[in-house]
Amino acid sequence: MVNQLKGAAIIGQSGGPTAVINASAYGVIRTALDDPNITKVYGAAHGIRGILDDVLYDMDQEDEKELALLLHTPSSALGSVRYKLKDSEEDPRDYERILEIFKKYDVRYFFYNGGNDSMDTCNKISKYMQKVGYECRIMGVPKTIDNDLWGTDHCPGYGSAAKYVATACMELYHDARVYDTGIICVIEIMGRHAGWLTAASSLATYMGSGPDLIYLPERVFDLEAFKADVKRVYEQNGKCIVAVSEGVQDKDGKLIAEYGAADAKVDAFGHKQLGGLAATLAHELRNAINTKVRPIELSLLQRCAAHCASATDVQEAFMAGKAAVECAVSGITDKMVGFARETDASGNYRCTIKLVDLAEVANAEKKVPDAWINAEGNGLLPPFIDYALPLIQGDPERPLENGLPRFVKLKKIRAQA
Amino acid sequence: MVNQLKGAAIIGQSGGPTAVINASAYGVIRTALDDPNITKVYGAAHGIRGILDDVLYDMDQEDEKELALLLHTPSSALGSVRYKLKDSEEDPRDYERILEIFKKYDVRYFFYNGGNDSMDTCNKISKYMQKVGYECRIMGVPKTIDNDLWGTDHCPGYGSAAKYVATACMELYHDARVYDTGIICVIEIMGRHAGWLTAASSLATYMGSGPDLIYLPERVFDLEAFKADVKRVYEQNGKCIVAVSEGVQDKDGKLIAEYGAADAKVDAFGHKQLGGLAATLAHELRNAINTKVRPIELSLLQRCAAHCASATDVQEAFMAGKAAVECAVSGITDKMVGFARETDASGNYRCTIKLVDLAEVANAEKKVPDAWINAEGNGLLPPFIDYALPLIQGDPERPLENGLPRFVKLKKIRAQA
Repeated sequence: MVNQLKGAAIIGQSGGPTAVINASAYGVIRTALDDPNITKVYGAAHGIRGILDDVLYDMDQEDEKELALLLHTPSSALGSVRYKLKDSEEDPRDYERILEIFKKYDVRYFFYNGGNDSMDTCNKISKYMQKVGYECRIMGVPKTIDNDLWGTDHCPGYGSAAKYVATACMELYHDARVYDTGIICVIEIMGRHAGWLTAASSLATYMGSGPDLIYLPERVFDLEAFKADVKRVYEQNGKCIVAVSEGVQDKDGKLIAEYGAADAKVDAFGHKQLGGLAATLAHELRNAINTKVRPIELSLLQRCAAHCASATDVQEAFMAGKAAVECAVSGITDKMVGFARETDASGNYRCTIKLVDLAEVANAEKKVPDAWINAEGNGLLPPFIDYALPLIQGDPERPLENGLPRFVKLKKIRAQA
Repeated sequence: MVNQLKGAAIIGQSGGPTAVINASAYGVIRTALDDPNITKVYGAAHGIRGILDDVLYDMDQEDEKELALLLHTPSSALGSVRYKLKDSEEDPRDYERILEIFKKYDVRYFFYNGGNDSMDTCNKISKYMQKVGYECRIMGVPKTIDNDLWGTDHCPGYGSAAKYVATACMELYHDARVYDTGIICVIEIMGRHAGWLTAASSLATYMGSGPDLIYLPERVFDLEAFKADVKRVYEQNGKCIVAVSEGVQDKDGKLIAEYGAADAKVDAFGHKQLGGLAATLAHELRNAINTKVRPIELSLLQRCAAHCASATDVQEAFMAGKAAVECAVSGITDKMVGFARETDASGNYRCTIKLVDLAEVANAEKKVPDAWINAEGNGLLPPFIDYALPLIQGDPERPLENGLPRFVKLKKIRAQA
């Protein structure tokens, strides 16, 4: 028998954006709006910050068709935040304020869409509400291009970012082959601690036009070995494409990106110019190999390139949001919606929902398995390809206006309790 | 009466690649293969270099379906080159060698696909062949993301690059609005002397989510005025997105990109290889405004992002290649295929072919009209939007394999005379 609970719902978004975090928000909002147990649906402006500041938007007042554009709008439409709650024992003020707002709006459902810090936030709020005896169902909806959340096969947001990275690498591979002169390209890819996104560049290699060398933060980065690798490939092919995670560190745990700080160029005004990792490595390679070296930072586009999203990712992101509401309404709380990978009778990939304890996922990190990285630490092995390929399938039908993306324009009408 | 000429054709590609230069090559190759006057179709490896080195590929031996993938493959499938022919009076050796190869393969048609340097090459070869009395029809097929070719309304390659730039700017705009904290983004866009591509970022602004400030090389760049502009917008909105052309110069003609890097490399045409402008400006802004400043280089992707091509551009690029062959077969020589803009009875954009003297277009440059730039020199006016919007329309149906682009794989079988 379902344990019925009537009341309002809040959806918040947290952490860095992805191409599909709004698809998950849409999964939550659409499902919540349609559920008779949920009396009102509020969007928190900038996640937990919007709750603390009492800035909530009334989702019931948004236009239905406009709202559906969330499926194809990158970044966080409600606004995101990086705000870490203190332990309630240490400082209960934030929690008291959240409780006050929950009571003010009769909030009985809270959905938080984010990475591992956000799951920690969810978990802390959930524990506090249980402690003070306020009935409220709290569900985490995962998102991260980093794909490093514990307890789920993969994270919404990863498939699209991976597709963008692989596509960009294929295009850069062809670009680097335009002239009959030598060139080395160093492509810097996001991922501080986990190399999932950098590993996605190997999908381009699998397709025959990708990086020759790929370095993940899961392995110690040795600058001399790196230079020797590049030199070997370059001398053989006259070209070398390298993909490297922004988070690679040396054996002492020092970020390679910080090597550049010491011999940074000084500009005309006497200011030191700090480059990124790609610029630092390009500088090292120019000193070691006499050829053109081009550093390329994929930069923010890898997390917001909705124009190159994976249809599978968009659909799964929506499904995660929808499942969070359905589970909560059915009586479940204190869980993150995760994905399990199944294989159907024909051997095809299938993604199903599993539930993970918030406490289990909060602040844990999932890295690329060591067995999926080659012995030399400069490439990926077939199990990674098998893992990643199903996640990047399909081009979503994205609405265009004037040949450009038609992103959602929310009214954002402030909620009245 | 058509002046019939039977013989082989060579197609070469030159200069920096675009997302659709191969669509033009396909227009040439497909049309030439189907024309009874053209006995053989050869692709020159790396443009004029492949002719000098006698490295020609036999296009008749390529698979028909595979060849059609040229429509959606970025970069130069035959290979490109930056090689400047000396005047034949000064040094006739290259010309004698080209004539020798033309005779060896009975080449009576030469199609060269490139920017203004390539039109100069075309023109010089054409004049030499006329001088020595070797009958050969020579046609230029334009391409450049820079859109700076004289005598044509616009250039194949521009529409796709413009669409990528505008789309990326829209996505970055949304990304910059994720957090409730201040941020300034400086987006560096290609274009040394002409600001067409940087101007395309204003299409994002027109759509409601683009740069606040846009700086083209057509106007003198004043660093102090720039900082004041950014400060004003930032203080008003808490965010500021700036698009700036890599080629902006100060009143003394010094590149702003060089304020930071004293030792920019120079290529075979004497063009300085720029880069690092965004980083330089970001550094300046950090010293002037106390907030997060993010430099973003759109880098090579703006010229090779076939995944975000304009269907209009792909179709027009093909049409340009096709028209070059049809004109040459009908007796025309010594011309570049250009585009004229017409308006049909319903007021819709229509693109037709016009022919331009090679001599007229060689080494000339077309800049953004001064009247299309605002008085402050930090934004575009409506005539630019009217000009650019028709060029970015439509998403081409691009073939995918494993969720990734399926680019052409040519056999590249060496030609036998």
